[in-house]
Amino acid sequence: MAMARLVIRNCSVLVVPAVGECRVDEYQDIVIEDGVIDEVMPAGAFQAGAGIEELDATGLIAVPGLVNAHTHSPMVMMRGAAEDVSIDDWFNRKIWPMELNLTAERVKVGARLACAEMLLAGVTTFVDHYFHADQIAAAALELGIRADLAPTFFSSTGTDGRDAAFEAAREIRALGENATSGPPRVTASLGPHATYTVTEEDLRRTAEVARAEGFRIHLHAAETADQTQSSKDRLGATPIEVLERTGVLEAGALIAHGCGITESDLAILATHAARTSVAACPKAYLKLAMGSTTPVRQLWSAGVTVGVGTDGAAVHNTLDVWESLRLLALTQKQREQTAEWMTISDTLRLATRGGAAAAGLPHDIGALEPGRRADIALIDLSAPHCQPLHDPRAALVYSVRASDVVTVVVDGNIVVRDRRLLTADLGEILKDAKAVAHTLVDLSQGGAVQHYAP
Amino acid sequence: MAMARLVIRNCSVLVVPAVGECRVDEYQDIVIEDGVIDEVMPAGAFQAGAGIEELDATGLIAVPGLVNAHTHSPMVMMRGAAEDVSIDDWFNRKIWPMELNLTAERVKVGARLACAEMLLAGVTTFVDHYFHADQIAAAALELGIRADLAPTFFSSTGTDGRDAAFEAAREIRALGENATSGPPRVTASLGPHATYTVTEEDLRRTAEVARAEGFRIHLHAAETADQTQSSKDRLGATPIEVLERTGVLEAGALIAHGCGITESDLAILATHAARTSVAACPKAYLKLAMGSTTPVRQLWSAGVTVGVGTDGAAVHNTLDVWESLRLLALTQKQREQTAEWMTISDTLRLATRGGAAAAGLPHDIGALEPGRRADIALIDLSAPHCQPLHDPRAALVYSVRASDVVTVVVDGNIVVRDRRLLTADLGEILKDAKAVAHTLVDLSQGGAVQHYAP
Repeated sequence: MAMARLVIRNCSVLVVPAVGECRVDEYQDIVIEDGVIDEVMPAGAFQAGAGIEELDATGLIAVPGLVNAHTHSPMVMMRGAAEDVSIDDWFNRKIWPMELNLTAERVKVGARLACAEMLLAGVTTFVDHYFHADQIAAAALELGIRADLAPTFFSSTGTDGRDAAFEAAREIRALGENATSGPPRVTASLGPHATYTVTEEDLRRTAEVARAEGFRIHLHAAETADQTQSSKDRLGATPIEVLERTGVLEAGALIAHGCGITESDLAILATHAARTSVAACPKAYLKLAMGSTTPVRQLWSAGVTVGVGTDGAAVHNTLDVWESLRLLALTQKQREQTAEWMTISDTLRLATRGGAAAAGLPHDIGALEPGRRADIALIDLSAPHCQPLHDPRAALVYSVRASDVVTVVVDGNIVVRDRRLLTADLGEILKDAKAVAHTLVDLSQGGAVQHYAP
Repeated sequence: MAMARLVIRNCSVLVVPAVGECRVDEYQDIVIEDGVIDEVMPAGAFQAGAGIEELDATGLIAVPGLVNAHTHSPMVMMRGAAEDVSIDDWFNRKIWPMELNLTAERVKVGARLACAEMLLAGVTTFVDHYFHADQIAAAALELGIRADLAPTFFSSTGTDGRDAAFEAAREIRALGENATSGPPRVTASLGPHATYTVTEEDLRRTAEVARAEGFRIHLHAAETADQTQSSKDRLGATPIEVLERTGVLEAGALIAHGCGITESDLAILATHAARTSVAACPKAYLKLAMGSTTPVRQLWSAGVTVGVGTDGAAVHNTLDVWESLRLLALTQKQREQTAEWMTISDTLRLATRGGAAAAGLPHDIGALEPGRRADIALIDLSAPHCQPLHDPRAALVYSVRASDVVTVVVDGNIVVRDRRLLTADLGEILKDAKAVAHTLVDLSQGGAVQHYAP
């Protein structure tokens, strides 16, 4: 056996197969070498030697690190600042005016806070879409979280804005490739904002660049049924039809939300299923009273992978993927009108393997299997709210709190231990966030980065 | 000024007025005497003397202790043991067969665990409906939580079962009155199970006893639209009409769920509004795909108070009222199709003052005001998932976790301090629960306590 660098001792392991029921194997060791899971074996069978770190995980359950499949991480800076408003007001009177206040430095402050919040909650990967994405990349690299970052652009900023966003993606990709010796922990996607804020010409150009340079495209589409209708009225096509005719689906896309996906859209998505993922963020849909949610069952039938995300904290208020996956299960049961749908196993699979696909890493993360990157959350299910523990899988979906996450490993590195962030000074992160928070919600200058009229 | 026994120093205070916006007053002292809030005043103004305990709450926010307005607390013992099943199977193949295994001792074990879980989460009052309710009363008295307990009965157990449940309520009332020198911390209600499991004759008798002896009645009614329809088919009346014609509404009722309440029911409820509360448990409605939720807006228009509860953990998986109140806000926005409804202030009011009304204590708990019992949760909003803190009220509804509850006071007594339960040995509670958990989910004997065919 090759030399291992880290062995996690004596944990239970959540096994999430590609199909069928999840199971929990008790008393296991996870052997990690160069950031990769080398073996998962019965506890005690592995003999550690010199230079091998041992992490005692007795009483904890190891779960594939969660993936936040769609977020705008620096928006933690607007958490709680846009409440009880319609989706129109949320965009036009709150968020897009606030985003005039964005600077590279403020984005960095928000991104560091977001990475800290996610890591402490067992989120080991996030898929992001925002401005000043280079700052988010720097924060992700510093704090030790995995990330795919799409620099956002609107067509209202012209071809210069668009091309600058493409260039930012190239730079982030290079940064990620140069930052670590192994496979990059930070990757980039192209980030047109949405089908209602980006022209078909710009979407076409995005698809060309994506195909030529091997990027995926991450964008908002068919967020609501209203958007689908207005797209038909305005462009004679649904948002998904627009993505098809501009080549975006052919290039490979992560579609945020998709609550307004129609039956005929599903047939289109099916033909691009191998290159398409959808990210569902159910808390946002309820909070903004959007009237529908992502059609997970239908997407799965079409062969499309689905992940779960938090969207930005300006609507979701947390970056807690445990909260999101629970709400996903609950709202999917409601949507399909059957309690037997969106089972615990399917929910856990969506949040792990589904998230991996949404992050563009379907074979690299999302399961605790030999050959995958060692992205692991170790969770304590011994607190009263999880006991007695008839079924740890049920506890992970319906009882657990993010505060039950004890230790977190990303790429084989321990980044959170005993509920403490090891990679940065949390006190400093919080102090920085407090210091600039007021600047981000200042509406005194008027104007907005964009107008919401989908 | 009279002698105080406890002063909570230098906290922020969530002020929940009877109408209008909630607000947060910073840097306050809460002065408590004989279990009652004597004054809430600017920090430092109160001079403590000998025999007065001081609790430093710098950096914490004091919130009225949450009320779990409807639960079956010992069902924590079946947590995670009835997943992904229809409501029919949940009752007929899981829960009601499992409840054949109930014994006084097992109920006590479950109730102690439930009280611990709730207190640690800042829930200071619970309104319960279950078997062996005397055991729950003993657990509540021991752990220092406030409770109203309704001993459950079905008509299938005959008049003997019914009368035994009434007698149990009388005994719990007496127990509560004798346990403390001040107003009782444990009270009793009458607990017919539901309009579909209790005959009209038994409901009439329940109403008579309630009026004669000053009890309130806590029962399930109109849980789903299906139940309302089958009640009409079977009895020629909606469940609410049954409650009216049997005198239950006249006596005063806490109605669990009410998702199947009709427009004409609302007019009936309006005439009894002063004596009626409804408890909403939205996680259960989603999880069982019940298809509707409690019509809070319409109930409020009818003058009926609404609280929020967890129902039993066999469906809800936690007794976390923070989770419930958040889901209530989210699902009410969805139900009314407007993000501007069920505001943060209304949600906090429902979970505190609404819960107080549901517990039969509308003037005694539910607000941090002079003259009310000192039931207080002190919460830390300084963790990354609540920061930066643009609006602490928003954090309490949309960001906070139960694990952010630091210290809990019930009736002026500190029952949780620095996240540790002071009133019982939590390790022992968890050990006891683990030891008997398997006995409660044993289905080998066949049969059931009741059959669900509403």
